[in-house]
Amino acid sequence: MQLLRLGPVGDERPAVRTADGTTYDLLPLTPDVDGAFLANDGVARVRAALDAGELEALDAEGMRVGPPLARPGKIICIGLNYRDHAEETGAAIPAEPVVFLKTPDTVVGPYDEVLVPRRSVKTDWEVELGVVIGRTARYLESEEDALACIGAYVLSHDVSEREFQIERGGTWDKGKNCETFNPLGPFLVPAGDVADPQNLEMRLWVNGELRQNSSTKNMIFPIAEVVRYLSQFLVLRPGDVINTGTPAGVALGQPEPKPYLRAGDVVELEIEGLGRQRQVLGQA
Amino acid sequence: MQLLRLGPVGDERPAVRTADGTTYDLLPLTPDVDGAFLANDGVARVRAALDAGELEALDAEGMRVGPPLARPGKIICIGLNYRDHAEETGAAIPAEPVVFLKTPDTVVGPYDEVLVPRRSVKTDWEVELGVVIGRTARYLESEEDALACIGAYVLSHDVSEREFQIERGGTWDKGKNCETFNPLGPFLVPAGDVADPQNLEMRLWVNGELRQNSSTKNMIFPIAEVVRYLSQFLVLRPGDVINTGTPAGVALGQPEPKPYLRAGDVVELEIEGLGRQRQVLGQA
Repeated sequence: MQLLRLGPVGDERPAVRTADGTTYDLLPLTPDVDGAFLANDGVARVRAALDAGELEALDAEGMRVGPPLARPGKIICIGLNYRDHAEETGAAIPAEPVVFLKTPDTVVGPYDEVLVPRRSVKTDWEVELGVVIGRTARYLESEEDALACIGAYVLSHDVSEREFQIERGGTWDKGKNCETFNPLGPFLVPAGDVADPQNLEMRLWVNGELRQNSSTKNMIFPIAEVVRYLSQFLVLRPGDVINTGTPAGVALGQPEPKPYLRAGDVVELEIEGLGRQRQVLGQA
Repeated sequence: MQLLRLGPVGDERPAVRTADGTTYDLLPLTPDVDGAFLANDGVARVRAALDAGELEALDAEGMRVGPPLARPGKIICIGLNYRDHAEETGAAIPAEPVVFLKTPDTVVGPYDEVLVPRRSVKTDWEVELGVVIGRTARYLESEEDALACIGAYVLSHDVSEREFQIERGGTWDKGKNCETFNPLGPFLVPAGDVADPQNLEMRLWVNGELRQNSSTKNMIFPIAEVVRYLSQFLVLRPGDVINTGTPAGVALGQPEPKPYLRAGDVVELEIEGLGRQRQVLGQA
């Protein structure tokens, strides 16, 4: 099952796409796909409605695909969670998860324009597995409890500005929160529909050239450990998103001159079973 | 004019308190005090309603005071923005503003319990001037434009866990986002009612002992510059909050054994014209 939101910016309507490619309107069942939907058995209700033939098909042709999660509460990011990426950036392998934040208003749809910030010279790409929380998580004691709090998985693009992030003083947040810096989607897949989230191939291309090519099996801290660990420091709530880190292949890790993004560049990314994004870069 | 929200957690109602101490119900005028209220001339509408005698008095006696801003979009924090605080923590004076983030779900009311996180040994206090954005700010060019985007000021307590923040790898965010870590209020004061936000005395006591005693005039980067600067890196939207930094006197800056907070401790803080907070520490 793929949960998605279709329509103009700020006026998306919830929908579900089934294995045969049919898209059904979810508006009669839920006002939106958000944290409350995930927390209140929304996925089970959709499944029951599909089984009962209660949903009406929707002609999705030509409709914009918005971010598949409305009003994410917070976006927590794990840095340096793939050994080869830590190595390419010259960073030490972290002893425990590195945490930083993106603000929810950086989220855009999977095919929306991404803007190179003004005065940016080091805008970079990062394909990541996004975890969507479906149940409140606080001081979890086991990885099993952690997995039970995951509502869905999603493809996430953690766009980053390396000069802002690393060379301008302070924390990484300064280079992670420019407008449009978190394309999300095209759809959520309920956690129960992902057989092994720790074994998904992930790839990213820039202007057709393959730049990142890895698998979620290469994470240093696996998903369940990330969720358990984070719950010791903050409360995870339904509708929160965790970006679980990126593998090697970002611009920062390339030899000089590093191929940072410019207006007109095209980034495509995908994770096995979670769909594909495509963004044309614009200039802020 | 003081804008506030009164009632049980999650069920606060908007109110306004005037110079004579009378509290008036704002529910007939606005569903809440939030970013949309500030952006859509809410303050002017309240003022007109007060002048016209259209608001009904409210008996606020015994009502809980909630955070005075509903659904803050994001909370941006400036680190090391007072010279004496940078010095007490052994940090260099920053060449440009240090930025980190708190998530909006850390916000509690000004008299609510603050929880020492489990396994915390270094929970610390920080009195700060909070700036509430009233108008969208993006790539501002002048400090004058920046000031025009400020909707209100508020007293903010940037509770921090220093071990999580500094000694656990990654960015400061890990020690800034524990539950209950951002008491806000007791009220918003519209920006037009604060004669000089850059000249407000600020104090904080722990168990009755004065620990912080400074003025907003001691900021390294003044409020207008902070807003202009931030707008180069992210979009500030109505309802966003900026915590503008804390002066010297935090536990981290004291000689050993440093007096970090424990359950049962009482923290009181105030900023001239922005009211006073009081929290009893509990244990998570």
